Amino acid sequence: MFNFSIKKRLENKDGNEFLGRAAEYETPHGTIKTPAFVTVGTKAAVKGVTVEMMKDMGAQVFLANTYHLHIAPGEEVVKAAGGLHKFSNWDGPMMTDSGGFQAFSLGAAFGTNVSKIATKDSGYVQEKKNQVTNSMAKVTEDGVEFRSYKDGSKIFFTPEKSMQIQQALGADMYFAFDECTSPQATEAYQREAMERTHRWAKRSLDEHKRLEKKKVGLINKITKNVRPPQALFGVVQGGQHLHLRKESAATLGAMDFDGYGIGGAFTKEDMKTAIATACAELPELKPRHMLGIGEPIDFFLGIENGMDLFDCVAPTRMARHGSVHTKSGKMNVKNAQYRTDFTPIEDDCLCYACTNYTKAYICHLLREKEMLGATLASVHNLYFVTKLVDDIRQSILDEKFFEFKEEFITKYYGDKYSF
Amino acid sequence: MFNFSIKKRLENKDGNEFLGRAAEYETPHGTIKTPAFVTVGTKAAVKGVTVEMMKDMGAQVFLANTYHLHIAPGEEVVKAAGGLHKFSNWDGPMMTDSGGFQAFSLGAAFGTNVSKIATKDSGYVQEKKNQVTNSMAKVTEDGVEFRSYKDGSKIFFTPEKSMQIQQALGADMYFAFDECTSPQATEAYQREAMERTHRWAKRSLDEHKRLEKKKVGLINKITKNVRPPQALFGVVQGGQHLHLRKESAATLGAMDFDGYGIGGAFTKEDMKTAIATACAELPELKPRHMLGIGEPIDFFLGIENGMDLFDCVAPTRMARHGSVHTKSGKMNVKNAQYRTDFTPIEDDCLCYACTNYTKAYICHLLREKEMLGATLASVHNLYFVTKLVDDIRQSILDEKFFEFKEEFITKYYGDKYSF
Repeated sequence: MFNFSIKKRLENKDGNEFLGRAAEYETPHGTIKTPAFVTVGTKAAVKGVTVEMMKDMGAQVFLANTYHLHIAPGEEVVKAAGGLHKFSNWDGPMMTDSGGFQAFSLGAAFGTNVSKIATKDSGYVQEKKNQVTNSMAKVTEDGVEFRSYKDGSKIFFTPEKSMQIQQALGADMYFAFDECTSPQATEAYQREAMERTHRWAKRSLDEHKRLEKKKVGLINKITKNVRPPQALFGVVQGGQHLHLRKESAATLGAMDFDGYGIGGAFTKEDMKTAIATACAELPELKPRHMLGIGEPIDFFLGIENGMDLFDCVAPTRMARHGSVHTKSGKMNVKNAQYRTDFTPIEDDCLCYACTNYTKAYICHLLREKEMLGATLASVHNLYFVTKLVDDIRQSILDEKFFEFKEEFITKYYGDKYSF
Repeated sequence: MFNFSIKKRLENKDGNEFLGRAAEYETPHGTIKTPAFVTVGTKAAVKGVTVEMMKDMGAQVFLANTYHLHIAPGEEVVKAAGGLHKFSNWDGPMMTDSGGFQAFSLGAAFGTNVSKIATKDSGYVQEKKNQVTNSMAKVTEDGVEFRSYKDGSKIFFTPEKSMQIQQALGADMYFAFDECTSPQATEAYQREAMERTHRWAKRSLDEHKRLEKKKVGLINKITKNVRPPQALFGVVQGGQHLHLRKESAATLGAMDFDGYGIGGAFTKEDMKTAIATACAELPELKPRHMLGIGEPIDFFLGIENGMDLFDCVAPTRMARHGSVHTKSGKMNVKNAQYRTDFTPIEDDCLCYACTNYTKAYICHLLREKEMLGATLASVHNLYFVTKLVDDIRQSILDEKFFEFKEEFITKYYGDKYSF
């Protein structure tokens, strides 16, 4: 039921091959044309956006978060509903993450400004440990002890537990349990965490195989269908250290995963080489997912160096604060100058917001905290990034990737990046 | 461009005529089949609901609030956008209120629990004045001094100013400036306020005629269309005192308004007689709008006694708190028992929420404060009340109003009301 087939490899004009590719990934809920952007609905709903709006904007895949859904409504509720597809009314391909990102966001990053994407200046502070005192997540060999975002109660995730939860949630693709490290962690800690992640990968894969075998022929009470198979992706870690990335990709690549995620900390400067290093080690005929990355520049760098899938909450999160993508870069539609601007966010954008509403209306709604403002800005941003990744795919098929990249990035970022 | 034609008068089996009727009201943006429920979008947007969702649920008319839009984005912005229709993307009939309700909600009611719909027990406390110390609204002969909900700054509405703002907003139907009184006001105050409202009605009508004459042939800069005519509705006041209601309706009925609103304070017990008393005095061939009323029982009582239009924020406000209408009464879908209820809010409801989602999903979203939860519950409640008023209209056409009323109210309210 899962099949990844490459349609076209990325080449430049001189005929040099790159790791990038346009492909098709068959899943039990439809075929994903990759590269593709994956829309995130943390709690089994995209904030302010219906599944019909997602389909209208060309969304192909939906990713929900295991840590959040375990806390509410609980995987047993989602399972009893017939799984995530039935629960959320999204009938296309779905993914869940493993909870491992929260080892970072509720751990080293908790209560700080540290982002998994650091700059060179801030990223390499090699003094702090990955564990900090006010942490909401504690890592041990057996797993991670989280605190609930709702009531602070303790939750213990092991690799086995994460697999069991994700099997119950029932997404098509799901991830092995991993530890996402901080860009501020020492190299010694990055190695320690990576090696533990590899041991967890083995435990995740064993539990996955046991659960897949067990469910063969099982009929779902609500849908009356046999529960379809699920695919497990391993997660490459190693931080900003290329030799660790290489080791991690080689180790996991030798294991029997259906696909791979690239997780953890990067800096903007070394993201490209880190991805290329990892992808060179990974099996070619399996999909590669870049976890939690969603800036326009990242799509180009990621795809050029071998990535097929990207998920990120940034498009909807920034939209709720009024920040919207345009081909000339980001702008804040809440700014006073847009109060009387009766043109769309982008004149030639075909999204629902741009074809029906003006900046003035969206500016008014966001300033007045009307829910519809967040909806319209989110729809625009999701359409923008979904279409951008689709356009990058098309540029590979048309053998125009490098021209498109230079043209887009120059217009979006000005002279920030050189070619 | 405005034409009200009665299609069927309400009769009972014995051939006795009532004031109720099924009618059609032609407006420059389409014909409204009355009785009809009017969807409220206070700030030119229904909270969490798109205009496409409104159309899907059968909404015919959209009402926005003058006080709120004057503060943000300001009527000059809406006018420059091409008017409320263009601004909000709603191309059907639209209304604005006058701001007079805020004389109550920001005046006598401000910081209290007093509702314009009181019960006999709480409603007739005849000791308090309409003006209280912590008021955000101060009434004088010339108009009302409000405070802005945004920054507390002073805003002065006169009848002329309210007309000018509403003409700039550009709804099809709008209301004369009035003072909505508290059910706790003394009879002496109710008379004083009513007589002032009548003087304001005359000033509103004069200003309306001046503005309508002035705009003939004026081309809108954005739409390039001639600005269509607008209809002005007078507002009957008089509180719970039938002789005042009668006097108010007779006074305003003799004036050249295009339609009438019934505003101000009632108790549940005297609403029926207050409406019947007012409607008996009003011209038969003009539409009658019940301001800010939206409980199922109110629709039946209002329609039976001559009302054609109803607007209310209750369906969306209660939805955001999880309270949803069912034919067996209200229920709170956030309650723990619905966490694992995988059936729709109502099995036979054809709204978007009920045809696609379970109580369990909506319960999860509302508990997790996901915007989509408020959207789905709001869509259901708006569909419910819109369809209920449509069904009441059909029951008049089918000569089955009284049977339908008894059946519906018995199922919804149990034995609370007798027939």
